[in-house]
Amino acid sequence: MSTPTVEKDKSGRQFKVKDMSQADFGRLEIDLAEAEMPGLMACRTEFGSQQPFKGTRVAGSLHMTVQTAVLIETMTALGAEVRWCSCNIFSTQDHAAAAVARDTAAVFAWKGETLEEYWWCTEQCLAWPDGSGPQLLIDDGGDATLLIHEGVKAEEVYAKDKTLPDPSSTDNPEFKIVLGLIRDGLSKDSQKWTKLAKNLVGVSEETTTGVKRLYDMQTAGTLLIPAINVNDSVTKSKFDNNYGCRHSLPDGLMRATDIMIAGKSVFVAGYGDVGKGCAASMKAAGARVTVAEIDPICALQACMEGFTVAPMEDVLATTDIFITTTGNKDIIMAKDMSKMKNNAIIGNIGHFDNEIDMAGLIAWQGIKRQNIKPQCDRFIFPDGHGVIVLAEGRLLNLGCATGHPSFVMSCSFTNQVIAQLELWNERNSGRYEKKVYVLPKHLDEKVAALHLPKLNAKLTKLTKDQASYINVPATGPFKPAHYRY
Amino acid sequence: MSTPTVEKDKSGRQFKVKDMSQADFGRLEIDLAEAEMPGLMACRTEFGSQQPFKGTRVAGSLHMTVQTAVLIETMTALGAEVRWCSCNIFSTQDHAAAAVARDTAAVFAWKGETLEEYWWCTEQCLAWPDGSGPQLLIDDGGDATLLIHEGVKAEEVYAKDKTLPDPSSTDNPEFKIVLGLIRDGLSKDSQKWTKLAKNLVGVSEETTTGVKRLYDMQTAGTLLIPAINVNDSVTKSKFDNNYGCRHSLPDGLMRATDIMIAGKSVFVAGYGDVGKGCAASMKAAGARVTVAEIDPICALQACMEGFTVAPMEDVLATTDIFITTTGNKDIIMAKDMSKMKNNAIIGNIGHFDNEIDMAGLIAWQGIKRQNIKPQCDRFIFPDGHGVIVLAEGRLLNLGCATGHPSFVMSCSFTNQVIAQLELWNERNSGRYEKKVYVLPKHLDEKVAALHLPKLNAKLTKLTKDQASYINVPATGPFKPAHYRY
Amino acid sequence: MSTPTVEKDKSGRQFKVKDMSQADFGRLEIDLAEAEMPGLMACRTEFGSQQPFKGTRVAGSLHMTVQTAVLIETMTALGAEVRWCSCNIFSTQDHAAAAVARDTAAVFAWKGETLEEYWWCTEQCLAWPDGSGPQLLIDDGGDATLLIHEGVKAEEVYAKDKTLPDPSSTDNPEFKIVLGLIRDGLSKDSQKWTKLAKNLVGVSEETTTGVKRLYDMQTAGTLLIPAINVNDSVTKSKFDNNYGCRHSLPDGLMRATDIMIAGKSVFVAGYGDVGKGCAASMKAAGARVTVAEIDPICALQACMEGFTVAPMEDVLATTDIFITTTGNKDIIMAKDMSKMKNNAIIGNIGHFDNEIDMAGLIAWQGIKRQNIKPQCDRFIFPDGHGVIVLAEGRLLNLGCATGHPSFVMSCSFTNQVIAQLELWNERNSGRYEKKVYVLPKHLDEKVAALHLPKLNAKLTKLTKDQASYINVPATGPFKPAHYRY
Amino acid sequence: MSTPTVEKDKSGRQFKVKDMSQADFGRLEIDLAEAEMPGLMACRTEFGSQQPFKGTRVAGSLHMTVQTAVLIETMTALGAEVRWCSCNIFSTQDHAAAAVARDTAAVFAWKGETLEEYWWCTEQCLAWPDGSGPQLLIDDGGDATLLIHEGVKAEEVYAKDKTLPDPSSTDNPEFKIVLGLIRDGLSKDSQKWTKLAKNLVGVSEETTTGVKRLYDMQTAGTLLIPAINVNDSVTKSKFDNNYGCRHSLPDGLMRATDIMIAGKSVFVAGYGDVGKGCAASMKAAGARVTVAEIDPICALQACMEGFTVAPMEDVLATTDIFITTTGNKDIIMAKDMSKMKNNAIIGNIGHFDNEIDMAGLIAWQGIKRQNIKPQCDRFIFPDGHGVIVLAEGRLLNLGCATGHPSFVMSCSFTNQVIAQLELWNERNSGRYEKKVYVLPKHLDEKVAALHLPKLNAKLTKLTKDQASYINVPATGPFKPAHYRY
Repeated sequence: MSTPTVEKDKSGRQFKVKDMSQADFGRLEIDLAEAEMPGLMACRTEFGSQQPFKGTRVAGSLHMTVQTAVLIETMTALGAEVRWCSCNIFSTQDHAAAAVARDTAAVFAWKGETLEEYWWCTEQCLAWPDGSGPQLLIDDGGDATLLIHEGVKAEEVYAKDKTLPDPSSTDNPEFKIVLGLIRDGLSKDSQKWTKLAKNLVGVSEETTTGVKRLYDMQTAGTLLIPAINVNDSVTKSKFDNNYGCRHSLPDGLMRATDIMIAGKSVFVAGYGDVGKGCAASMKAAGARVTVAEIDPICALQACMEGFTVAPMEDVLATTDIFITTTGNKDIIMAKDMSKMKNNAIIGNIGHFDNEIDMAGLIAWQGIKRQNIKPQCDRFIFPDGHGVIVLAEGRLLNLGCATGHPSFVMSCSFTNQVIAQLELWNERNSGRYEKKVYVLPKHLDEKVAALHLPKLNAKLTKLTKDQASYINVPATGPFKPAHYRY
Repeated sequence: MSTPTVEKDKSGRQFKVKDMSQADFGRLEIDLAEAEMPGLMACRTEFGSQQPFKGTRVAGSLHMTVQTAVLIETMTALGAEVRWCSCNIFSTQDHAAAAVARDTAAVFAWKGETLEEYWWCTEQCLAWPDGSGPQLLIDDGGDATLLIHEGVKAEEVYAKDKTLPDPSSTDNPEFKIVLGLIRDGLSKDSQKWTKLAKNLVGVSEETTTGVKRLYDMQTAGTLLIPAINVNDSVTKSKFDNNYGCRHSLPDGLMRATDIMIAGKSVFVAGYGDVGKGCAASMKAAGARVTVAEIDPICALQACMEGFTVAPMEDVLATTDIFITTTGNKDIIMAKDMSKMKNNAIIGNIGHFDNEIDMAGLIAWQGIKRQNIKPQCDRFIFPDGHGVIVLAEGRLLNLGCATGHPSFVMSCSFTNQVIAQLELWNERNSGRYEKKVYVLPKHLDEKVAALHLPKLNAKLTKLTKDQASYINVPATGPFKPAHYRY
Repeated sequence: MSTPTVEKDKSGRQFKVKDMSQADFGRLEIDLAEAEMPGLMACRTEFGSQQPFKGTRVAGSLHMTVQTAVLIETMTALGAEVRWCSCNIFSTQDHAAAAVARDTAAVFAWKGETLEEYWWCTEQCLAWPDGSGPQLLIDDGGDATLLIHEGVKAEEVYAKDKTLPDPSSTDNPEFKIVLGLIRDGLSKDSQKWTKLAKNLVGVSEETTTGVKRLYDMQTAGTLLIPAINVNDSVTKSKFDNNYGCRHSLPDGLMRATDIMIAGKSVFVAGYGDVGKGCAASMKAAGARVTVAEIDPICALQACMEGFTVAPMEDVLATTDIFITTTGNKDIIMAKDMSKMKNNAIIGNIGHFDNEIDMAGLIAWQGIKRQNIKPQCDRFIFPDGHGVIVLAEGRLLNLGCATGHPSFVMSCSFTNQVIAQLELWNERNSGRYEKKVYVLPKHLDEKVAALHLPKLNAKLTKLTKDQASYINVPATGPFKPAHYRY
Repeated sequence: MSTPTVEKDKSGRQFKVKDMSQADFGRLEIDLAEAEMPGLMACRTEFGSQQPFKGTRVAGSLHMTVQTAVLIETMTALGAEVRWCSCNIFSTQDHAAAAVARDTAAVFAWKGETLEEYWWCTEQCLAWPDGSGPQLLIDDGGDATLLIHEGVKAEEVYAKDKTLPDPSSTDNPEFKIVLGLIRDGLSKDSQKWTKLAKNLVGVSEETTTGVKRLYDMQTAGTLLIPAINVNDSVTKSKFDNNYGCRHSLPDGLMRATDIMIAGKSVFVAGYGDVGKGCAASMKAAGARVTVAEIDPICALQACMEGFTVAPMEDVLATTDIFITTTGNKDIIMAKDMSKMKNNAIIGNIGHFDNEIDMAGLIAWQGIKRQNIKPQCDRFIFPDGHGVIVLAEGRLLNLGCATGHPSFVMSCSFTNQVIAQLELWNERNSGRYEKKVYVLPKHLDEKVAALHLPKLNAKLTKLTKDQASYINVPATGPFKPAHYRY
């Protein structure tokens, strides 16, 4: 691989996308998506004239899709200057990337990046041409946050004794690249990441995986910036994770394989918000579903919904479709796949690709790989049986379909805009320390309220008397913090 | 009404139930229920030989049903000396009350108590024949807790200036009775409630309504004892409230009215845990369901599940069945009922009977009441149309059917036993102050785990490596405190 | 057993019911049911003034429930003189029987008849005090039709050589009674059944089982009267059998056992219309369902709906609830029950009680029977495990609950009224020979149309042009005869 | 448009497809589909060695998809010489067409044919290079059958008085083309269609629409050949139409528009087998669904499943997604679309494109057409609101997705193979006259049985005694002819 080159448009704005000629098509789809994203459009209406982000530098690392384009353009409509990359090598929609790159923001993203290209894009996204970096960060999965934190850490070590990061110190192929990238940067500017972190007001993080990393850093005392955990807004985790996957799992399966789901046996690893949505969609489509869980509470919920609860071993030989949703690793190993039935389908809808042992599969003695179409491969074991792996073990809904639909992403992304507003408006107030925060409930409720009219839903109003009886303000928030929805 | 008289069995144990001859039938049903309550039976196995409650006085105010009998007998199996009343005038199952009164504990409860009888029973339940009171309290809705707190309050006032509580100071007919009862007691022993409260180690509270009262007292600084909020154990609120009602709402409707639910239009007020279970059951039975909500988040959840969200006014004239689940008051007023279609069915499944304006209905000029069968009345308006009100506006699933099934109550009640053990074991440790607590997550998970084998559900186990990757102990707890399930 | 005695009211109308004091309660419930039976009420409106059945003698053998009361009173509203018995020893609702006996027709039915009493009631139902018999017959399951045909057969044999029927010639305990009854009658009037059959214009038959008997007689050439197969009206078999059971199976299970269905494993034998409704209801309640089928087409339908399809042997030891719906015999044998888990629940919702081997169970060496409540028995095997059998193997929805709800029975019974009108109006036209007929499609559609307004359903109308394009009359019938719905 | 040219491969086999380079990809997908089409593969195993179609000329006009490729290659595996065209201008999958054209049969089909090209392809499909025509015909929708019948009719007229068909005699643009094509052929061979029809042994017809045409011809006495109605095999209409659409409607909607279905309001015109599948899938995905019906029986079924039943007018302004499934015409007119909300989505899943008034829409004064992507157009009315029309009003599941999945098509196509075998094996026996037949029930059951093992479904077997009790052969057929499943 040769390093990609940054391009520039007439105005001097940088970008690197697959094919600028798809910009018109991207724009059409963005126009349509706007009608399905009432929360974001309401933010433009409510805050646009005030330009709260006027001149603010905002970087984002989040699947560069049509829906994300509406998020980006909401941020720019509020005054921000935005740079963007994707947080997954397969999740970019090239027409959306082209439209945004042409019209609105600096985009570095295309479908099918190599890992090296992926981290190059991430680096570009964080590097303003004037040498500065972002003041705000929107992250998904925490890779951009990780790069900054690893950069600062390496610069601290280097400052002490000139030790450079050593890519050979890790087995993880992706982390090798990160270390190499930081190492190469150190020779040019040994304070790059330190300066960048200093100017960064905060990050809002989109997903479970990234949030876990943030809490781990908070616990370890290494978090360098305030962080808002958008994932755990109710209007995010209980909607995007659950209802989003309920939509996009069957979508991804159908586009990738055209398999009839009715009558099939499906195994879903994990019954969290994502697993709940996945299992529900497969049941609704007429499949028999077995759920695996480590947590007895989630397991009992699965029982109450009529699912069989059993470990994967019990159904390995009889299952047609395997889906991982755990956020954990090593869920389906190569050895497991070697025992599956012919043409078993395997897909991951958790954030990282280590739920499925792709490395072990590729390294299996005598294995043959048959590419059926993009994001759909059949691996044939020496005994002749094959398994069909979707999106190379990465998020199948983004790799094989178009991810979550606009409406549910509008819930998530409206939380993002509101979180960014919080971080920015409170940047000098000291309200947010270097910790992880969730949005206050009244903002969570506001996000929901912005999405009801589109669905013709009408709220009931509390009378004063009723509000006082249950001891809440008549306009909310309506629930105690511990309420689970 | 004349005051009921306490009866005694040969051993001298007190009771007052409807019909002791139903004890054998009650015992048969208790035997069957035990097989469906694996959590409680596991507590007997695990703790029985240690007799942790040996000689401990435990009072309970909680629907005196077959399932509660298994709870009571689990407490006695662990050594407790138990007195019991129901927390609802219609919810006692007389055969269960008889069996427990005959075999195990002092029971004061029957189906169809008057309000005066209800509070007499509550008082008996708290009054040991030796003049002492309970050391532990199990409450549901908080009436027993209220009586104690009001008693103490009145005694404090009385101690100052001999002022007696004045029943005429309140419009609430039930609170009038409470004040009268306390007033009458003051003349006999002006320290009764104060002494009782002093000896009380703590209370575990079963339901949303009672929990709200406890938090209000905590906020006001008036809570006299430590309290464990059992309702907000995940294995309680997300199971009993949701799946329990999903079962018992159609059960109650069918037993009371035999109406075909398929094809009908149903209105559900409230989409909390109870409302979610109710709406799901009606949809599953083939009804068209409209949900009313004040909270935009819950409203958006209802949308995602395919429900119409609208205020009651919009569907008043076209709805066949109205169900209230809010925990609030004044949900369906007499005026609303005057506009409903003929034979509209109205039922409440929230804790208190003030969700439906029974007083207004009964007082409606020219109304006629036609009793169809117990717990099922038709009120005929002067214009000739009638509405069918279930259980006089009280919990229809308990009034018209048998409440929640044993299995789901086993989840709730295992939490109760564990909460009582916590309060008792830590009575001298200072761990629990005069505040409201929820059970720690590992106990919540334990409750779930005890119920899986009965359903043939098998958990998956984390490897050490996986546990470390997601940073949880391999044996749990598996989720952060804010996790919503 | 002593033979029951016919009673008479002041008007001289005969009856035999359990308790006449329940008549008021029955009347109240009949009033309510009328509002849920729009098809029958529309028949009263449309045909009442013409009195098409004026003076016609109509006998019915069909579960004597509240809904049947509305059918009976629709027939009398159209002028008929009606006598009635139930077609199942447990299915009578005594309050409905009382109300009808008091107000409308000659009823011979009570809940919990012995088999001897059952056939005595059937005989009464067919015997007018003036010595005549019915001109029209409404039958359910074909027992009344059987009695007539067996009677005629015996009289023919007797006429030849004075041979009397011999009860000892059969092993079937019920058929023994039938033969005894006919034998005893022969001594009094050797032409009784022959005369009765001669005056009988026709029969309309309600259910699959009775219809099968009719077609068998048609094939054998022994059918003595024209018969209308009401069961196979779409508005009967696709509604009552399917949606009726979807309602009444969970109702019966809950009333009889209070068991939580969610999380349980349920086995449904048969996936015809009844089995489809049963399996759907159990799935909707959160159970895991296994279906057994002999017919590969129905089996494949079950697969498409997400059910496991397997023979009972495969799930015998793990299933919580067993339901038979086959219309066949010997589905669950005593040996099978001996291998079930403790407290497995067994119920039948097919017409006859021979789906479950009650005889074998009762005769099992060392078995103990524990009656829990009416229609609910636990049989304890010598090894200590017990099984819970509902309604002694008879229709559990009628034995343990109140059968199908009024609305769906209105569909079935409106077909009955229309069938009776057809038979009577065409009695002299020769239109109906001694064969089995189904109602023409336009009448089937009419039945459906009469039930739509109650559910606020509005039909769309074909334009002339559209009607001509699909080559049907604009007002129907809309489908070819072979259409399956 | 210039007329397409027939191409030839090395062996001389003719074809015309879009892109032969896609053949490898097509072959891969055909290989995968074979594993999902157990019925067809079982036919190859059972009949392949006998070569029942050895040398038989078979023409097919049926969506040229991957699944159809497996059908075609099953026919060739049984010895047939096959020519094929698609029955819809948008439904061809070009990679499947290429693979079959390269490896197996003469294919004339590509995605996006003009109407002229469509009928050219149909003509090629029927015209063997040696001047002969097909001996067997597989048709879907009846266009190939129509062409033959219209050809014969025109030749008869021409034979009388040399009158040529006059394209200007019809307003229907498609029928103009048919008449022109026949007219042009007459000048070359005035007996072409007559000879072709004479050599044709029979046709098996796939779908409701084509079957209706056949019955109309049978009634009119103009049917020239025996026809087997495959559509009304239970294993076709109750599976492909219902479960196929339940799968492919959401698939088409998601691929074309990425719209979130949950929370949306959906209107489904028609509640036949196709409408049932469509409505079920939308409900399962979380939409609120309104169904329109002309037939009161189907309307009442929709009510029982919880759907609102209302004419389109009632929901025109509030519906997000409109789906037509009627098989009738003029369901959604341009005027209706002018009143819809902005970005309402409109799709047809009935056979012909005249359910939606495309002509009226295109001709609307001032309308603008915005092509979003292939098969997805937005039509903008002068008032600024737009509607999104899928697949230009043609079958959206084939135009926007890949049609029905392999498994359910295996059911349909196994019926086709069995129907073709019947027609061919009985070609000289006189069993099939010039009428329309359905397959006997034992063959229908066989088709189902061939599909059960793939889903791990195990049948239960009747004992002799049970079979005799219900009076059916122990191996089936198990149901009377009128049974509706």
